[in-house]
Formats: sequence, structure tokens, C-alpha cells
Amino acid sequence: MTQKTAYNIAIVGATGAVGQKIMQLLEEKNFPINELKLLSSKRSAGKKVLFGTKEITIEEAKPESFAGVDIALFSAGGSVSKELAPEAVKHGAVVVDNTSAYRMDENVPLVVPEVNNEDIANHKGIIANPNCSTIQMVAALKPIKDTFGINRIIVSTYQAVSGAGAQATEELKAQAQQFLNGEEMEANLLPVTGDKRHYPIAFNALPQIDVFGENGYTFEEMKMINETKKIMHDEKLSVAATCVRLPFFTSHAESVYIEVDKDDVTVADLWKVLETADGVVLQDDPGAQLYPTPLSSADKEDVFVGRVRKDLDNPRGFHLWVVSDNLLKGAAWNTVQIAQSLIKNNWL
Amino acid sequence: MTQKTAYNIAIVGATGAVGQKIMQLLEEKNFPINELKLLSSKRSAGKKVLFGTKEITIEEAKPESFAGVDIALFSAGGSVSKELAPEAVKHGAVVVDNTSAYRMDENVPLVVPEVNNEDIANHKGIIANPNCSTIQMVAALKPIKDTFGINRIIVSTYQAVSGAGAQATEELKAQAQQFLNGEEMEANLLPVTGDKRHYPIAFNALPQIDVFGENGYTFEEMKMINETKKIMHDEKLSVAATCVRLPFFTSHAESVYIEVDKDDVTVADLWKVLETADGVVLQDDPGAQLYPTPLSSADKEDVFVGRVRKDLDNPRGFHLWVVSDNLLKGAAWNTVQIAQSLIKNNWL
Repeated sequence: MTQKTAYNIAIVGATGAVGQKIMQLLEEKNFPINELKLLSSKRSAGKKVLFGTKEITIEEAKPESFAGVDIALFSAGGSVSKELAPEAVKHGAVVVDNTSAYRMDENVPLVVPEVNNEDIANHKGIIANPNCSTIQMVAALKPIKDTFGINRIIVSTYQAVSGAGAQATEELKAQAQQFLNGEEMEANLLPVTGDKRHYPIAFNALPQIDVFGENGYTFEEMKMINETKKIMHDEKLSVAATCVRLPFFTSHAESVYIEVDKDDVTVADLWKVLETADGVVLQDDPGAQLYPTPLSSADKEDVFVGRVRKDLDNPRGFHLWVVSDNLLKGAAWNTVQIAQSLIKNNWL
Repeated sequence: MTQKTAYNIAIVGATGAVGQKIMQLLEEKNFPINELKLLSSKRSAGKKVLFGTKEITIEEAKPESFAGVDIALFSAGGSVSKELAPEAVKHGAVVVDNTSAYRMDENVPLVVPEVNNEDIANHKGIIANPNCSTIQMVAALKPIKDTFGINRIIVSTYQAVSGAGAQATEELKAQAQQFLNGEEMEANLLPVTGDKRHYPIAFNALPQIDVFGENGYTFEEMKMINETKKIMHDEKLSVAATCVRLPFFTSHAESVYIEVDKDDVTVADLWKVLETADGVVLQDDPGAQLYPTPLSSADKEDVFVGRVRKDLDNPRGFHLWVVSDNLLKGAAWNTVQIAQSLIKNNWL
């Protein structure tokens, strides 16, 4: 089959924070688009949006919307993906799904292109984009694992409110202003929109992202644990996570402890691996106070790593500080990278 | 010797954030005071402050200020303690020092009363108050260590700006308002006043508290590591720390991983120990979204623990979320508790 030179692309959830970033990236990267369909809920349908110089009318996402679509990028919540991704596949599209709906489905590859790009080849119509906090961690750790082995990961996260959606971002702004005005902060959304209790996030920290499971871990923590094993193809890898929501807008940060398989590994060895790793930027110079922060990493596509230290007791233990824009590498950019790989490798 | 019924107390650094909290606590707890001397730098001397209904004039701290003083509570920075604490001791006072000046001095007990109260008895004139982030962690872990043993601690902290002083609190407020106004944030203080570079803390996270040592760890991280071993009297205890400054005002939070010495320990076992531990309050009910946060813990004297979970891979591993007011249990309240113990046990 001769490969096409331009593709019909659909974005489901085009009006959301991630959908908007996906549109920006398709334009910036000159993605080879024949026709771009912007799909959304009934509520947003009819709105007009600019893509480059072209005005596109947003349509309601329906099963028949996917006729003729080559690649459908879903980012409209798990229930929409569950309903419409199979319909898109039936119509011949390949779906890149940004929700948790299919991530642990054994028939669905879960992909971070820098880590397990080759898994895309095995897709049966749907490829899942991992959780934001997982993506940046595995992107930073995979090159280390490939070189020195990793058998243990313990991560504590510092996560931005934009991971909970655009409304959470507005809630943080409103609460911060209320506090500075000496008013009581109104909490209606965080930590989890649908959960029973809401707490202020401004000038606070909430050790709950997503709802709690019966084992006392949140779903976010279990996503990090399960997805990391799946992406790394290592069921024996020990992964522990504590996920915390914090009052900043963009970029998740992670304090990561790892144990490597080899003796005598040094910080310089890890630096060397990280410096040449795809999609990773080493920012690690304590003497110059150089380390990544959420503010310094926002609006950038890379995963930034700093504070690489050897554990003082365990010669195979290391600590790292990993930061990346949760809406870009953590969502939109990873999705677009998967779409690029589908085309480049003729895996559609 | 007949014990006195009221004591001459001096507070060095009376105008600082911790000094003010110490005054409040002495009043609230009806500390048996004969005379209260408020000492400060030359700059603040002459100011008048209310203690209860009594007006006290702040005096410049000098060696001779300590004549007749029974207990001197120092909280005016390490250099002041280095200069004046020995002078206070020469004048017959017992010093409780809230700075890092003497903490690792082998002749100086480093004390959290719930953990190692008996060490106070060995003082040679100076007793050191540990670092804020250390105090709350050892208070939560000591009862667990006593019951099940602990051989490994890995902590990632979430620390409030008030730990960097009252000016840092003002900087966070000013930056937050600048950001909300769409202005550029001005950074002049954090992460460390005297260090070369300053970054905004509002809507950000800074993985640097105190300056960096040659091993890549910050002094704050090394304080947590070294002080924990000293307070626990366990040089073999493995402790690793990553310390991060965050945009909230009061209370440090900590994501703590521990490995216990015994098999078959359950979350319920840890709950039972924590429920009855002195100075510790268990707030752990995921189903009810009950866990401590910096906002919920502020202005309270206790150490709050939640999110107690068994590690999913290591049967001896557990995760906890520990939160406490860094100015109270982390500083002023622990200092006052040591002073109370000196009197109660006749250890002056």
C-alpha cells in the first residue's frame, strides 16, 4: 500500500485544555493534515475555532463522525472514550486515547515513544496515552533502566492543578485571590470533582488525586504503579507512589528514589545517560542552583531532571527530581508523538 | 535544693516569628514565670510588647543580659546562639536553642520530648531543638520504631514558607498578588536569602531548602538525616531526604516511606500505635477523605498522620503522610515543652 502524504485527523474533546494543546502542536509541528475534524460534546458543537488561518466548526462527536478519519485523538474523558473509541475503530480510524479507559487493557499498547515506541506496532486500533505523572517518570528512568537496571521505584509527586482540568485552574486563582483579600476560600472542585468533600488547594497541599481504592491508595497512585510496570514491560519492578496536588498551575514535579541493579554506579554515570536520552534535559548543577521547577518547565516539551544524588546508605540507591509540563509531555505532546510515529513507521 | 515555683525566663529573638509563638505559648500554658526578659538585636531594642496584661520593653541581647536568668530560649539565628548561648550558660542559665548551631554537638542533647525526653537530663547547659522537618517526622515514627523497629526512612518533604522566616511569608503573598494581577513576580529571598539566585515560590515548587553541600544534598536534607539518627540513638538507621519548599504559609507535610524490622505488621497495627502516641493525632480515613493538610494542621500543637498504607511489594514497607505546624511543634512548642520538662523533672 502506498503511504498517504496527508491524513484526516479528528480531535475528540477539542475544546478542553489538552485538546487545545493538541491543536497547537499539530500546527507547530506541521503535522501532515488533509482534513482536521474537531469533535466535542453537544454543548460546544457549533463553535468556530481557528486552526492556522482556517476556521473550523466544532461538531458533536457521534459514531458516524469518524467516517474517513485516519487518526482520532481522544481527550474528552473516560466515558466518551469507552463509548466512541470502538466506533472510531469500526470506521477505520486508529485511536490515540488520552484517558484511563483502555490503559490497562492487554490488547491496547500503552506508549511513551521514547520508552516503548515499538509497542505501537501491535495496536488493534487503540493506543493508550499513559497518565501524565507516569509519562515523565518513565521517560526519565527508561534510559537508566536500560543501562544499569532498575528494580525499585519510590515516588512522591508534586502535581499541578491543571491536571484536574481548566476549572481547577480557575478555582486555584479564585481561592488565592480570596485568601489575599482576607476572605474565606470557596472549595467546590478539588481534590476530586465527583468526590464527597472539597478542600481549598490555594496555599495548601492535598494528598489525594483521584478517588481512593479499597487498598488505601488513590487511583492516581495505582495508575503510576500499574502503568509503569506495563510500559517498562517489567511486572517484577517494584513501584510505590504517593500523589499530592499542589497550588501551582502547570508541570508536575516528582521526587523519585530508585535502586539500580549494578554496583559502583555513580552520579556522573547517571548524568551521562540522562544527557543523551531522547526527550530528557538534564538541569543539575547544585553549585549554580540549577534544577528544574514547575515554572521553569512550563510550556516546554521535554522532561527535566535535576538533583541527582546517590543515596547515602544504599550504594545502589539514587534520588532524582523530575519535572515536566503535564499538559504537553504529560498529555498532548505524547499523544501527537504517537500519531507521528504511526505515520513515520507506517503502523496505521 | 528546694525547687523554685517560678522562673526567670529570657527569650532571645523575641520579635521573630518563633519568638512570638514562644511568648504566646508561655502565656497559654501558664508557664511558671517570675520575670520574663525579651531580648533581641539592637535594632528592635526599646520596643514595648504586651505579655498578658504586662508591658515588657525589649532589650538588646548582651552577655550580661543573662544574669539571674534560669532558662534562656534562643531563636535568633545560629550566629547569635554561637555568640551568646555560652555566655548565658556562664551566667547560670540553661539554654534551649532553636537554631542549628549546637544540634550535632556531642555534648548537646537534641530533644523531642515525646521521643527522647530523658536525654535532657544529660545537658551541660545547652539543649538543642531539632530542625522543624525532623521534629514532626521523629514524633510520628518513634512509637512505630519502639514497637516494630524501623531500619529505613525515605522522606520527601512539602515545606511551608514560614520556615524561611516572616519575610518569606510576605514574599509569597506579594508574588501571588503580582501573578494574579498579570505582573511579573519579584523574587528576592527564596529559596535561600544569602544564596546567589532567587526564584519565585508563588505557584511554584523549589527543590532547595538551605544551601547545597558538596555531596549534592542541601543542608536541610542533611539536617533531617543526621538529626534523626541522633534523636533516635541509631547511627545505623538509614535515612534519606529530599526537601522541597512550596507555596503555602504554615505546616510542613512529609511523604514518608519506612521499613520495619518485623514481619506481618499491618496498617491496623500502625494505626493502633499512632492512636495512643503522645503528641500524635491519627487522621486516616480514605473513605471519608480524612487526611491532614497544611491548612487543617496550622495553629495546632500536634503532629497529624494520615494515608498510612502498606507497600504493595515490600511486606515490611509502609507509607505515611505526616503534617504539623512548623512554627509550633516544629519550633516554639517543642522549645517550650523542653523548658517544661526541665522544670518538671528538676533537670535545671
